[in-house]
Amino acid sequence: MVHLPKSIQNLIDELAKLPGIGPKSAARICFYLLSQDSHESANLAQAAADLKKNLKKCSVCYNYGQTEPCEICSDEEREKETICVVEEPLDVIAIEKTGYRGLYHVLGGAISPISGISPEDLTVSELVSRVKNGGRKIKEVIFATNPTLEGEATAVYISDRLKATNVKITRLARGLPVGGDLEYADEMTLARSLEGRKEL
Amino acid sequence: MVHLPKSIQNLIDELAKLPGIGPKSAARICFYLLSQDSHESANLAQAAADLKKNLKKCSVCYNYGQTEPCEICSDEEREKETICVVEEPLDVIAIEKTGYRGLYHVLGGAISPISGISPEDLTVSELVSRVKNGGRKIKEVIFATNPTLEGEATAVYISDRLKATNVKITRLARGLPVGGDLEYADEMTLARSLEGRKEL
Repeated sequence: MVHLPKSIQNLIDELAKLPGIGPKSAARICFYLLSQDSHESANLAQAAADLKKNLKKCSVCYNYGQTEPCEICSDEEREKETICVVEEPLDVIAIEKTGYRGLYHVLGGAISPISGISPEDLTVSELVSRVKNGGRKIKEVIFATNPTLEGEATAVYISDRLKATNVKITRLARGLPVGGDLEYADEMTLARSLEGRKEL
Repeated sequence: MVHLPKSIQNLIDELAKLPGIGPKSAARICFYLLSQDSHESANLAQAAADLKKNLKKCSVCYNYGQTEPCEICSDEEREKETICVVEEPLDVIAIEKTGYRGLYHVLGGAISPISGISPEDLTVSELVSRVKNGGRKIKEVIFATNPTLEGEATAVYISDRLKATNVKITRLARGLPVGGDLEYADEMTLARSLEGRKEL
């Protein structure tokens, strides 16, 4: 173990806890900050300290927002007929980039018996009552959970509970990723994309 | 551009300025911190804010340290006869890991006419006087600058200026990286490793 000044070692340790940053990248970032003007690290510190200030979980969609309900839920120009169900707030950003203009519902994860995550740990009941109480305003629920075992199971479980509502329930298409290479696609993806083939 | 709450966008922007972190990793880190206890981001903020506190550049070796001279320069148990010359403080960590027990000199970069970095922008004169004034105590100067055009030129330039001192001047060996694959080695590296071949 190399002996480093305490404040350097401290920041390296904190950075190395973050996802995708190993000890080497952490050291590189730390020495980069040292080589920069003091306000670079001060700005980072301020941004990290202020992260959760004025931030709340929206009581309608459970995404992060500064207002209650959040900016998306209270946006008059969004289509109120569609709810896109995602696992995490980060997924909202991905869907937003596609130009989707409907509403969201953030589950807070996926059902996973192995990790001990049951529907009660997620905002599943909240979604069900939201759809039920929405009356005829909500016409479609799009499941955009991850294409994993847990994500699929979560979508199936919730759609079962939503069946009585007569709302249209859809799931994001599975198939070949755009720009991908056929020979590198796995069997499952290829099978799904055959199954879901469209007429030209 | 996706609209995000200000404090989230702020932290993503600050993180994305760091080396090796793109906007996607920045968002991932930011939402990771949101999902964690508040003290995670508070600790990161504190570490970033305190980074330069109690930290000085050593007036002997120009590495970062908490004392003056730094911990390495003032360590009685280190060999005072050898100075290892590196470009950046980060390089000191790499050399320390090898178990090297001599002293260091941090240049602060490499001479690069293209980037407008001349010997005066580095601690070159300081190294030359350090070796000259060191009398007979300093026996060897090891150049551990990067194996790049700039690093090589810097080593050659400084060693020229040190010639009058009669101190032994060496350079890290160039050759095949340990664990590397011969067929992937570039011509220059292979030529250097042939040139520097050793008897078995």
